[in-house]
Amino acid sequence: MTPKLLVEQIKKKKSFLCVGLDTDLSKIPPHLLELDDPIFAFNKQIIDSTHEFAVAYKPNIAFYEAEGISGLESLKKTMDYLNTHYPEVFTIADAKRGDIGNTSKMYAKTFFEYFNFDAITVSPYMGEDSVSPFLSYRDKTTIILVLTSNCGAYDFQTKILDNSQELYKRVLETAKKWDVHGNMMFVVGATKAEYISDIRSIVPDDFLLIPGIGEQGGDLSQVCKYGINSDIGLLINSSRGILYSDRTKNFAASARAKALNLSFQMGEQIKISLYK
Amino acid sequence: MTPKLLVEQIKKKKSFLCVGLDTDLSKIPPHLLELDDPIFAFNKQIIDSTHEFAVAYKPNIAFYEAEGISGLESLKKTMDYLNTHYPEVFTIADAKRGDIGNTSKMYAKTFFEYFNFDAITVSPYMGEDSVSPFLSYRDKTTIILVLTSNCGAYDFQTKILDNSQELYKRVLETAKKWDVHGNMMFVVGATKAEYISDIRSIVPDDFLLIPGIGEQGGDLSQVCKYGINSDIGLLINSSRGILYSDRTKNFAASARAKALNLSFQMGEQIKISLYK
Repeated sequence: MTPKLLVEQIKKKKSFLCVGLDTDLSKIPPHLLELDDPIFAFNKQIIDSTHEFAVAYKPNIAFYEAEGISGLESLKKTMDYLNTHYPEVFTIADAKRGDIGNTSKMYAKTFFEYFNFDAITVSPYMGEDSVSPFLSYRDKTTIILVLTSNCGAYDFQTKILDNSQELYKRVLETAKKWDVHGNMMFVVGATKAEYISDIRSIVPDDFLLIPGIGEQGGDLSQVCKYGINSDIGLLINSSRGILYSDRTKNFAASARAKALNLSFQMGEQIKISLYK
Repeated sequence: MTPKLLVEQIKKKKSFLCVGLDTDLSKIPPHLLELDDPIFAFNKQIIDSTHEFAVAYKPNIAFYEAEGISGLESLKKTMDYLNTHYPEVFTIADAKRGDIGNTSKMYAKTFFEYFNFDAITVSPYMGEDSVSPFLSYRDKTTIILVLTSNCGAYDFQTKILDNSQELYKRVLETAKKWDVHGNMMFVVGATKAEYISDIRSIVPDDFLLIPGIGEQGGDLSQVCKYGINSDIGLLINSSRGILYSDRTKNFAASARAKALNLSFQMGEQIKISLYK
């Protein structure tokens, strides 16, 4: 699954919704806890009920690791299910990995080979050789953290360098140079809609993965106003707003309604962009 | 296991050696591959043969994840073995995690509770709220990446900010302010010995975890010259140089000899520091 095929899916579904699978045993409907694998059971129903409106799924790896070996078994089953039943969706390991070259190579093997994700989020702090082992998988996508949606983003990411440029812009410009195979995307926090036009001027053609719509405070129309390009070029994530809108046996139908609503709004934004 | 107890161990063993368990199936002695769990079998023998000379062990999480579920089972067995048989050693998850607060909280749960590590390495790019969930475990240690040993460190870490300060120094100064419980350490690449005196002037009393002696090009005496403080304040890691010095059935004895040699050199540096 490449960014090019993702564009086709976005145009077909008229949606650029990514569903974040931050599956938390303390938040899923209690009746599922009686099952052998509540995490997979929850994910399966969420996926089955939302896939018409979503082009991507993004398991948040921390939530699976926190359950130990059994959580990672649930993740593996989730990925096998997605790749078998919905090979047209784009899968992102939200892992924020990054280490020296021989170690990043191992992380790339984990997420691109063992779990068979299409993409992974990567932290840029350790520079080019920490990212290049991911990029060397040409049919996989590496998504670089540029500007995140949390308040800690202001601790370092927005600091000004001696050429008057913010660190996150330097990260964006520098990482863009590493993208010789066209398989890079960028994480940009949606609570920073005012920054998105600046980011678009640096990477007009690339995909931006935008967390933070909903719970993290982002505004869809503002993000789209500055972020949509001719290929749409956006993946907007929603996790808790979709997953935990209902804790009864009706949760999947409720998640479906939330996803439908978001994808409808996204369809409207696509229409608006056509008249720009 | 707290930094204070670690100082006692260092003084007792006259060594500040950390053995990096970057256990790679393609590099361990081939005869182990016939066993049920070659990774654990290898780690167990390495630990048994080096623990007299090492005060810390640092499994590199990527190497376990790359083997999937079975790799993580080997990691769990390794940690259970260390905590049962050698509770006096300091254990570090070299994981370089970091994400928004509710996600970092999950990673902290994984490594501090499920695997029961004493410490974890954390990437600072996402700022305070990405680090504080780790710090809230007061009897555990959070080790912040400051300056790494790879060439990519020069891409962003050494960039100059508009107050003429390098980014890594800003990270160090800022992170230090978050350390209200005294449970923080810092990663400093040993190939940058010339930077260590500057770092010591910012954090005179804290522990520095120094990777990169040996394979990554660091020089022990240079690092000690600038880095040792009255509590020693250094953990120096060696991975490949100890683990893979011999691929025959004699590997554990060979690892022991390498660890002994390094700890002897460290003992000499401790003596030199007493006369400073």
